[in-house]
Parts: sequence; C-alpha cells; structure tokens
Amino acid sequence: MKFLTLLFLLIPALSGAVTHEDLMNLKPSPNVNEHGIGIFVYDGMNALDALGPYQTLKNAGLNAFLISRNKDKLVTSSDTPSRGLKLIADKSWDEVDQVDVLVIPGGAISTARLTQDKEVLDWIRRMDQTSYFTTSVCTGAWLLGEAGLLKGRKATTNWYRAKEFLAKYGATYTNERYVQDGKYITSAGVTAGIDMALYLIKTLYNSKEYTQAVMLDLEYDPKPPVRGGSVKKSKPIVTNSMRVMYDWAFDLVLPGFRPAD
Amino acid sequence: MKFLTLLFLLIPALSGAVTHEDLMNLKPSPNVNEHGIGIFVYDGMNALDALGPYQTLKNAGLNAFLISRNKDKLVTSSDTPSRGLKLIADKSWDEVDQVDVLVIPGGAISTARLTQDKEVLDWIRRMDQTSYFTTSVCTGAWLLGEAGLLKGRKATTNWYRAKEFLAKYGATYTNERYVQDGKYITSAGVTAGIDMALYLIKTLYNSKEYTQAVMLDLEYDPKPPVRGGSVKKSKPIVTNSMRVMYDWAFDLVLPGFRPAD
Repeated sequence: MKFLTLLFLLIPALSGAVTHEDLMNLKPSPNVNEHGIGIFVYDGMNALDALGPYQTLKNAGLNAFLISRNKDKLVTSSDTPSRGLKLIADKSWDEVDQVDVLVIPGGAISTARLTQDKEVLDWIRRMDQTSYFTTSVCTGAWLLGEAGLLKGRKATTNWYRAKEFLAKYGATYTNERYVQDGKYITSAGVTAGIDMALYLIKTLYNSKEYTQAVMLDLEYDPKPPVRGGSVKKSKPIVTNSMRVMYDWAFDLVLPGFRPAD
Repeated sequence: MKFLTLLFLLIPALSGAVTHEDLMNLKPSPNVNEHGIGIFVYDGMNALDALGPYQTLKNAGLNAFLISRNKDKLVTSSDTPSRGLKLIADKSWDEVDQVDVLVIPGGAISTARLTQDKEVLDWIRRMDQTSYFTTSVCTGAWLLGEAGLLKGRKATTNWYRAKEFLAKYGATYTNERYVQDGKYITSAGVTAGIDMALYLIKTLYNSKEYTQAVMLDLEYDPKPPVRGGSVKKSKPIVTNSMRVMYDWAFDLVLPGFRPAD
C-alpha cells in the first residue's frame, strides 16, 4: 500500500515513549527535503535501479524526484527503446541547481556509454559539490567512479567484475549490499537500491521504528522461490554463464570498456 | 544490470548437463509471450507494485507490458498526483483484446475507489476469461476479489486487515509471500510482487537455473538495515500504528469501505 503524505500521521500514533518534542524532531536530518533527493534517470537505465529507491524514499515521506538530461523529460529504461519503460521525469537538468542527495542508477550498455560522456560526468561532479550524500545503485557506481568521486574509497557495485571495475576507478570493492564511505553510499546490483534507500531513511530519521514502518508499508520481507541473488548463493554455472554473457556483450558493443581478468 | 534480450543468450552458456534439445525447450510454457503479460497501471497505484514485477519479468525476457484505461496512456502513481511517478503505458484498453497473464497492482485510496468502478471490474473479468494466469500484487487482490474471482479460493494481499478483506470477498487468507490457487496467484504487499514474478518465471520456464540467473541479474539478495517488513517481524507499536493510520484514512475518505474488526 502507500500513504505517502499520510505516513507523517503515523508519528503521533507511535506515541508510547515518544514525547511531543521527539515527534517534532522526527524530520530528516540533515533536511534533505529542502533541495530534495534527485534521482538521475536516463535512456537505457534499469528502471528498478531508479524506482526501487524512488518508491521507498517516497513512502518515507521524503522529497524524492526524477531528473532527466533532456528538456522533454521523457526517458525510456531499456537499451532497446521499444522494449523499455517510458517515464516522465519531474525536472530536467536546467531546472535543478542543486540536490541534497544525488542517486545515480545503473544499467548495462547505456550506462557504460555514459561513462564516456563528459557532459554527464561534469553534471554529476557539479551536483556532488553541494550534496549531503552522493549515491549509486548497481553500475551507477561506474559513473561516480569515472567522475573521480570514488578514488581512495570503499565502494560496491553490481557483482559483475565488481572488484576490477572499482579498481579501475581507484576504489576498493567491499562485498556488501551498500557501503558508506564519507558522504558516498554505493549499493550492489538493482534491488540493492531498496536496501540502500532504507539505510538512508534510517540514517536521516535516526529511528528504527520509522524505518520499520516504511518496510511494513512496502511489506519488505522478501522470500524468493529459489535460493540465489548473489554470486555466493548462485550455482557456479549460472554466475559463470552470466559473466561470459556480459563479457561478450561489452566486447561486442564497447571493446576495451570492461576490465580484463 | 540488465540485458533483456541478451538473457536468452545465456541459455546456450548454461550448457553442462543441458542438451541442445533442452535448450530449444527453454521457452515459457504455456507460451505467455503470444498475448503477453499485461500489467494494469492506473492513477494512484503504488509504482513498485507494477514495476517490481515488470522489470523482473522483462529481465527474464518475457513480453510484459503496461496497460492503461485512458487513451493518452499517461498514468500517475500517487493518490496525490503532484507527488507521483508519471509513466506512459505501452497500450490502452482499446488496443488489448486479451492477455496471457494479467497482473493487477495495488495502492491505497485509489485502489479502494476502483473496487467500486464497474467498468474496471468488467474489464478485469473479461481479461480473466482467456488468461493462463490472473494475478495481483498487494491490495490489487481487492480488485480481483470485488470482481468475484477469489471466491472460495486461498489468497493473500497486503497485511492490513488481510483476513477481513479476503473474507469479504469469500476467500481464505493464507499468510505467504504469494499464493497460487488454480490459475490465480495473489501476493502480499508491494515488494512481494517481485517474489511472485520470480515464482511465475520458475513456473513458466520450469528451471531453477533460469530463475537464479534472473535473480543474479537483479542481484536479488535483500538485506535491509533493520529487521522488519512483516507483521511478525515488526514491533507491535509499529504495526498497530500503521493499522490505526490506515483505518483512519479509509474511514475519512471512504466510510464503510474497510471491514471492521
């Protein structure tokens, strides 16, 4: 379900040990609602990289919004546009001077291409200058890395050649769902963005109960039909096959992009 | 990451024990790609209810698409439109004669309102007539229930007054992430739609490895920062407060809609 604005009404009901003064204090700190949480959306991204965090943050009553590069704000989520999700961003680059939190979602080929796009890297660096937190989901870390923001930091990204990619950007791979180093928070592949968003909510509200309320609102108690979802939990043949497939695709479309063994 | 179409290329690589004949058979059965998996999107739905399954099914190479009621195909995900996600459906009602799988996402107030909308219930019943599977996410079960499709069946829905809501529709609440009864598959709140989509993938491809590959592609190995996400795992004060909040909101906007204790 969802009651975006209504979630605020929950706070008085949490009562019990919580005093009126506590309640007044249950606002995000720092106040990221002023300039908001800007999620960069672009053609070819993975829709869930962006919208998992988006919905989670919105359910927590936070001012999360989507930012596109193009003025028409129309973004399609797949490398193959005819197969993608079409969404309309809330704002375009021109309309955003700064954000309090920057979220960079990942994807595959299109994301790799953006790592070679100076305009995008410059924009990320500019948004980063005044952000409280700069974050990435999945291969969005490639963009933060290419922008030079992960140098000397601990970080994570999609499992595919994670260590090699992060080494390329001067970062140290840490195999966690999300990793914070200073104001930089990176997360593992796609669905890890939801965990990272919850971590951000817990950090901003400094409340386990508030985080739990958001989780219950999303009924976030996953139970997939088979064991899996990480390299460790997958059969080697599955992981190896996926790696071969990714290698093949990148070598075909962007030779020299992916780090070698 | 994502390689929608490319995922098919993985199959040969899965090789090992898998013969060429096996590979040729690795198509969804029944062939739900013919008329596709239609996800009903509507103003006020929870975006993640629709897009969690959407992206999961797309990553499995399935023909999933969004269907709107309106011809302009523009849908906004929040009860408060100015706060919602704006997306463009792939097709409108007029353009869809039948679907192989129907997915009905949930929401809050707007979903409750749709349970009183004869045109929507008729459309759901019509799509159901020729579907292989008819499914719901979260409070989408209210719509299936109101359409009379859950009568005498086991089902699940969002945790909020789940038992009472399903009893109202003649169904028996089963506290699982997803429940199949005949061709009807219902899932618990919001994020349970991802688990249900994986279950559908496992059912259609009859392959643990294929399901695991999709899960690895989404790096679906959740690890939230706090324990929670279900009634059982939440502090009673959190669950009770949420229930009070939901009761309050429904009684304010749609008196008489929600079942009493």
